[in-house]
Amino acid sequence: MPRGKYGVSEAVIRRLPKYYRYLKEMEKAEIQRVSSKELSQRMGLTASQIRQDFNCFGGFGQQGYGYNVTELRQEIKKILGLYRNYNVIIVGAGNLGQALANYSNFEKEGFFIKALFDINPRLIGMSIRGIEVLDIDQMEEFVKKEPIDIGVISTPKAKAQEVADLMIKCGIKSIWNFAPIDVEVPPDVVVENVHLSDSLYTLAFKMNNGS
Amino acid sequence: MPRGKYGVSEAVIRRLPKYYRYLKEMEKAEIQRVSSKELSQRMGLTASQIRQDFNCFGGFGQQGYGYNVTELRQEIKKILGLYRNYNVIIVGAGNLGQALANYSNFEKEGFFIKALFDINPRLIGMSIRGIEVLDIDQMEEFVKKEPIDIGVISTPKAKAQEVADLMIKCGIKSIWNFAPIDVEVPPDVVVENVHLSDSLYTLAFKMNNGS
Repeated sequence: MPRGKYGVSEAVIRRLPKYYRYLKEMEKAEIQRVSSKELSQRMGLTASQIRQDFNCFGGFGQQGYGYNVTELRQEIKKILGLYRNYNVIIVGAGNLGQALANYSNFEKEGFFIKALFDINPRLIGMSIRGIEVLDIDQMEEFVKKEPIDIGVISTPKAKAQEVADLMIKCGIKSIWNFAPIDVEVPPDVVVENVHLSDSLYTLAFKMNNGS
Repeated sequence: MPRGKYGVSEAVIRRLPKYYRYLKEMEKAEIQRVSSKELSQRMGLTASQIRQDFNCFGGFGQQGYGYNVTELRQEIKKILGLYRNYNVIIVGAGNLGQALANYSNFEKEGFFIKALFDINPRLIGMSIRGIEVLDIDQMEEFVKKEPIDIGVISTPKAKAQEVADLMIKCGIKSIWNFAPIDVEVPPDVVVENVHLSDSLYTLAFKMNNGS
């Protein structure tokens, strides 16, 4: 079901970051123009798929002439909402939380991890790239002082809903959830799930079905 | 483009693990039968979507009477290919690799991590839940002795293609890639990507577009 300002489907939304990634790579390789055909070959999509996707956003170039790589990258960056900064907290400072805190790439696109939170006394007080691990009990107070846009859940499954509820209570409207459960949230809260098992089972299916 | 034995689309494939996850939860809650309507409400899909999806696999129940939860769960488990074991290695034993090695849930579904590999002498020799971190130079020999079904790439981006090439050289036909790059592989190798940045940017898009 298409929703939101652009009224585009989930499938189109999910391709946007991929376009953005490929265009960044092409810019780095100093490629200045690209046709939908070339882009489709690089990305493993069809050219008509790409043109259809871009038409959802008004189209970005002239057919036959190709797209200006930098302009297209900038347009997609704008659509994704990456021309602003996001303050992020991570709840769950185990290996996964630490791995996420260590990804300096997120900062390059404006996602700043402000703190990690945990209940484990052995983790509280640690620091990852200068980002402190705080007691979960400090979260409410922390978020009052430093407005947080995105809450990351990297706790075990059993704690995920509780953490989501706490984030929502603190006024966080966007949740990036790594726990293998679909957390329940009110309609004004956005959740993006990374279900690792789902991805692994998809791989198993593909292995077994030659797709 | 529908491919493989069942000739189903990528979108359908991606919903299978989600059905599986919900059905497991329902079984745990001792729910014995479920209609497509109930299942659709739980999963945030439409009932007709669910019936369409199931029809791709011959349909699993009688309309109006509902599905037997356990039987449906077992059918989907079979389709996913989860009635066998998979031997897995992880290349890249940093936080992410360690987080993956720590997920005991994967074992419950038959995915056994046999070793981690790294180039970092500080990590080589470590052990995570009894799984050893070995020198990447030992990988070829290791895979000769212990057939490996799935190679996980949890290295930085710059090493990912090299690692994929090495895995393929060792005869590994399925790659679960966490590096933020689409690795190039021959047609007989299956790759499933977990692009964390793509997921984060999708969240940003949804935040900004109210979808």
